[in-house]
Amino acid sequence: MPQQEVTDVPTDAFVYRREVRIEWGDCDPARIVFFPRYFAFFDASTAYLFEAIGLPKPEMIKRFDIVGIPLVDVGAQFFIPSRFGDRVVIESYVSEWRRSSFRVVHRLLRDRQVAIQAHEVRVWAGQDPDNPDGIKARPIPMEVIDLFKRTAA
Amino acid sequence: MPQQEVTDVPTDAFVYRREVRIEWGDCDPARIVFFPRYFAFFDASTAYLFEAIGLPKPEMIKRFDIVGIPLVDVGAQFFIPSRFGDRVVIESYVSEWRRSSFRVVHRLLRDRQVAIQAHEVRVWAGQDPDNPDGIKARPIPMEVIDLFKRTAA
Amino acid sequence: MPQQEVTDVPTDAFVYRREVRIEWGDCDPARIVFFPRYFAFFDASTAYLFEAIGLPKPEMIKRFDIVGIPLVDVGAQFFIPSRFGDRVVIESYVSEWRRSSFRVVHRLLRDRQVAIQAHEVRVWAGQDPDNPDGIKARPIPMEVIDLFKRTAA
Amino acid sequence: MPQQEVTDVPTDAFVYRREVRIEWGDCDPARIVFFPRYFAFFDASTAYLFEAIGLPKPEMIKRFDIVGIPLVDVGAQFFIPSRFGDRVVIESYVSEWRRSSFRVVHRLLRDRQVAIQAHEVRVWAGQDPDNPDGIKARPIPMEVIDLFKRTAA
Repeated sequence: MPQQEVTDVPTDAFVYRREVRIEWGDCDPARIVFFPRYFAFFDASTAYLFEAIGLPKPEMIKRFDIVGIPLVDVGAQFFIPSRFGDRVVIESYVSEWRRSSFRVVHRLLRDRQVAIQAHEVRVWAGQDPDNPDGIKARPIPMEVIDLFKRTAA
Repeated sequence: MPQQEVTDVPTDAFVYRREVRIEWGDCDPARIVFFPRYFAFFDASTAYLFEAIGLPKPEMIKRFDIVGIPLVDVGAQFFIPSRFGDRVVIESYVSEWRRSSFRVVHRLLRDRQVAIQAHEVRVWAGQDPDNPDGIKARPIPMEVIDLFKRTAA
Repeated sequence: MPQQEVTDVPTDAFVYRREVRIEWGDCDPARIVFFPRYFAFFDASTAYLFEAIGLPKPEMIKRFDIVGIPLVDVGAQFFIPSRFGDRVVIESYVSEWRRSSFRVVHRLLRDRQVAIQAHEVRVWAGQDPDNPDGIKARPIPMEVIDLFKRTAA
Repeated sequence: MPQQEVTDVPTDAFVYRREVRIEWGDCDPARIVFFPRYFAFFDASTAYLFEAIGLPKPEMIKRFDIVGIPLVDVGAQFFIPSRFGDRVVIESYVSEWRRSSFRVVHRLLRDRQVAIQAHEVRVWAGQDPDNPDGIKARPIPMEVIDLFKRTAA
């Protein structure tokens, strides 16, 4: 129903695509996907995106001495609902690299139409040296951004 | 980490408050709440909000001959993580009534600090007379808006 | 830890196998899969099992005029935990046909070892003619059992 | 539909009772609770049961130097479905203490009728001294069992 604009996928970004089958337990009494499940799909797609460029999350955490890539901002527009048994495609890419955070765009396609457009902003986070329970944003290593560029090419 | 502005709760809105206990199964290997769970909390809070003004969802659907109030847009900013055992408070209110849609704001408080600010845009949706599988936005009855006003006063 | 016996998969049953990737959101603060997620995997595997013999759930419901195959009994033994990133295999088959119910066995394998053995008992349920809100067990059509036999052969 | 026997709650056990509201997102397209959600409810009830006798999980883990109380066996019989908006009561108690494991029984009541009876077998588990990634069953301290007895009395 919303007449929102759907962003075109940039031609030079590395786009990770996967098919997801909508399962019975993903759906609610309105017989459509209960929307928090979509965010679980997108969260997994971000992990698969990093894995696809050669950085599976557990390895990435060790190699760059970070605690993870926690989410600080998320949003989604829902255009078309999906139902039990549907095969949908999720396309995910990093749309923007900032100093210590980055933006991931996810588009969920149903019958080649954009059913959902979503984004996540995540922080490259290490342990806070001044607070054992805290985390602190750190500059994203050029190496990571380069891996994305090289995989796209 | 994000320096986003937190909106003040308007003094004339009806605000529904509830405490939620963070459970083991809400949390992920980083020992913080897996963020899609927050959206399930917020979705439930919207249902409780309507129930609190006298419109439990099943009744509302029958009384106004709608199919539901599907989500078309959602967003959230995450400021402070929550952990297993935490008692958090969720405050929810309708921040805006449009012709056939409305906006709900949710704030999740931890130790009286805003840990998350989120919004949902939902549509007042009836069956599409021209398509048995489709839904169509309908004007929100004044009666519904009045119920919110009267409960706030 | 439990020294339970693992049942051999019968050689004459139709076994549906699929790989599942363990995702971040499937895991809890102990860094292992939160066990209710396994039951969602198994529930989906039962649906895929019927689909594989030619009876996708929505079609099956229409064709045999049933309301579904609700669960009446479930159980599982957990031998080996699974973690984020693991690729596990789920094998599922109908181990027993009764008059109006049937038993499904699921085995989750990790590195070719049985990590979980589970069962579901489900009822072939139609609408109760004496109660519009109720359901009633019905005899399972021979046609359904034959489809499983033919697919296995 | 199953004619299973429901166990009486023993008069000398400490029983933890809580009300749970069935939410929209707990339910599936059959408009009843998607059964894995019940196991999340029961898992939380076990945590609340220990908390109620004075052992919140995080404290318990530190105090007794264990890694947790992982599940090794679970089972449930489903008699009556629950639906969106229902208020159900969950009663939970330890039905048996063994050397290094214990059995928890959960009963979910709807309109004072037993809708589900379930059990969990959990192990008192510490780190395996011979394997940094492994866990090892340990004898349950008498102190823990005594706390349950004293709270029941």
